[in-house]
Amino acid sequence: MATTADLKTCIAREFGTPAVVIDLDIVDRNIARVQGICDAAGVANRPHIKTHKIPALAKAQIAAGARGITCQKLGEAEVMAQAGIDDILVSYNLIGAARSGRLAALRKTLDLTVCADNPVTLAVYAEAASQAEALIGVAIECDTGRQRAGVETAREAIELARLVRDTAGLEFRGLLFYPTETSWPETQKFFDEVRLGLTALGLEAKLVSTGGSPNLVNVGKLSGATEHRAGTYIFNDRMQIKAGVATLADCALNVYSTVVSRAGPERGILDAGSKTLTSDTGGLDGHGLILEHPEARIKGFAEEHGFLDLAKCNARPAIGDVVRIVPNHVCVVVNMVDQLIAVRGGEIVDVYPVAARGKLV
Amino acid sequence: MATTADLKTCIAREFGTPAVVIDLDIVDRNIARVQGICDAAGVANRPHIKTHKIPALAKAQIAAGARGITCQKLGEAEVMAQAGIDDILVSYNLIGAARSGRLAALRKTLDLTVCADNPVTLAVYAEAASQAEALIGVAIECDTGRQRAGVETAREAIELARLVRDTAGLEFRGLLFYPTETSWPETQKFFDEVRLGLTALGLEAKLVSTGGSPNLVNVGKLSGATEHRAGTYIFNDRMQIKAGVATLADCALNVYSTVVSRAGPERGILDAGSKTLTSDTGGLDGHGLILEHPEARIKGFAEEHGFLDLAKCNARPAIGDVVRIVPNHVCVVVNMVDQLIAVRGGEIVDVYPVAARGKLV
Repeated sequence: MATTADLKTCIAREFGTPAVVIDLDIVDRNIARVQGICDAAGVANRPHIKTHKIPALAKAQIAAGARGITCQKLGEAEVMAQAGIDDILVSYNLIGAARSGRLAALRKTLDLTVCADNPVTLAVYAEAASQAEALIGVAIECDTGRQRAGVETAREAIELARLVRDTAGLEFRGLLFYPTETSWPETQKFFDEVRLGLTALGLEAKLVSTGGSPNLVNVGKLSGATEHRAGTYIFNDRMQIKAGVATLADCALNVYSTVVSRAGPERGILDAGSKTLTSDTGGLDGHGLILEHPEARIKGFAEEHGFLDLAKCNARPAIGDVVRIVPNHVCVVVNMVDQLIAVRGGEIVDVYPVAARGKLV
Repeated sequence: MATTADLKTCIAREFGTPAVVIDLDIVDRNIARVQGICDAAGVANRPHIKTHKIPALAKAQIAAGARGITCQKLGEAEVMAQAGIDDILVSYNLIGAARSGRLAALRKTLDLTVCADNPVTLAVYAEAASQAEALIGVAIECDTGRQRAGVETAREAIELARLVRDTAGLEFRGLLFYPTETSWPETQKFFDEVRLGLTALGLEAKLVSTGGSPNLVNVGKLSGATEHRAGTYIFNDRMQIKAGVATLADCALNVYSTVVSRAGPERGILDAGSKTLTSDTGGLDGHGLILEHPEARIKGFAEEHGFLDLAKCNARPAIGDVVRIVPNHVCVVVNMVDQLIAVRGGEIVDVYPVAARGKLV
């Protein structure tokens, strides 16, 4: 195994900085651990690929036991389907993609499941089904406290399920939940009420999906859930540590960055700014943890400059030093770059194109 | 000319949403206006391409009279040089790119100017010059109040210029300033002191560059400046409006987004989240201005969801509506997407690949 210093030198020479690097030993461990959590809870694992956007890693998740994958946008599903993955849930109201004809085009190649929380989305899906000359499977998205998308009452969920049943081209598949870390009791109540209504309609929710990496501590708490979808766990980040579902040793992704300036004894500049680490703080203080200088604070950004406050550092980095940063929110960092450098045992073993990067439709 | 409604329908059908759209009539006007400002002030225009990252637009700026271009990272310069642009300033301490051999490789094809604020960077440049078997032109970056990179005293700038002079492979080209909107008097004092020191060293600053779109009102205020580098002006955004250097009519870039959910009478969900509009607020309230609903507030993001607070809206958007968003900070939005859709007179006339997107090294 090469030393950390050797690896830094190697990455700086071969790729330059900033560079985004994943440790496959940690990735493997994270994949196995979450598969184990789902297995133990008796629910299928359907990881969300929005975190890595890389077909090879999705396949590694499936090889470890995952039933299929979750995507947030159709463009991600297109990339994954193209790579041969055939069990895909898109957890989104896909109006923008369906209207462009791309949902119909993908449906011709794959029986995916899409989501909706309103009749307009269902009408757009029905049109796509007509174009594709195939049934489109739909899950109803339910909001039990997160205040994102999703119907807010069981009554609405039942009404939408009825509409799916009664709309030519659509097939009711189930329910999508994304509870907050504390709203699982309300989610159970919501689900039980919907289930009763579905039975009265002659429908069954074959797919009952819960979500979130911070919710990995809650997997199995919804009686009747069939699947869990978590994404961030494959790499982890400061947000997951804060949420108590990962330790620093579970963080597989580092941004390698060079200290390029040291104007003033208490200031420094990294060559990673908002166009690398993003301005997404995840609600945390500072914009990442520097492994070599945990007391240093990344206090702000220009687009290509990271501003270091070194006031609390005993040993301060020198110009030219390469440092490793654990990001606050790893999913948005991966979305900035065209490739991830993969290491194992301290050696570079692969370079993965982030194939679904920037697939916003 | 097509109507706005026609254009929305066309973009939604051809590309899906979200989609990032530029109006070339406004782009042309912005290019001409800033060229006029530089011409009137008697300084050359060297636009910063970090905003658009598109060779065709860099060439349009040069065709309108710009002397050359500014890049922030070497990867941007590589793309622009590949497209045939031969007068490039990289306003950055390029340690991370130089160590990887890419600075030497580019120098073999092009006589670019790079920047430094410290001896370590100069040593790395000297090694690149040796690899390239060619002189590398260097400007010294000076900080006159922004607290980013740059030497903080005239004495340090003179010392570095001397080091450039005395280092084999390097050629002193001049000085890079990026004054704050109010630090122009201090910048003049700094520059005058450096100029005296340079004369004593037998050196001349042929390039004296000032920067920033918000500083367009200050172009020409530094006596002895030879060039100005502004970037954001080509598209403009809410930050430029706030800075008083653009109006809404000067904003050339809109993010077209569909309202995909309306859970609750005062809430809505856009299909553009932090992976489209980014979490960079630019210090403003809300994450963008919705042209159709200026009273709506984009109050937060998930990665692919924009959270709308509609409490103050009289007319609220319906599910399925396509809206146009003026971003807070346009440079980081362009960096999220692989292409910009170009319209003129309300018709789609081109699709530009964002060729230098994600060039973080």
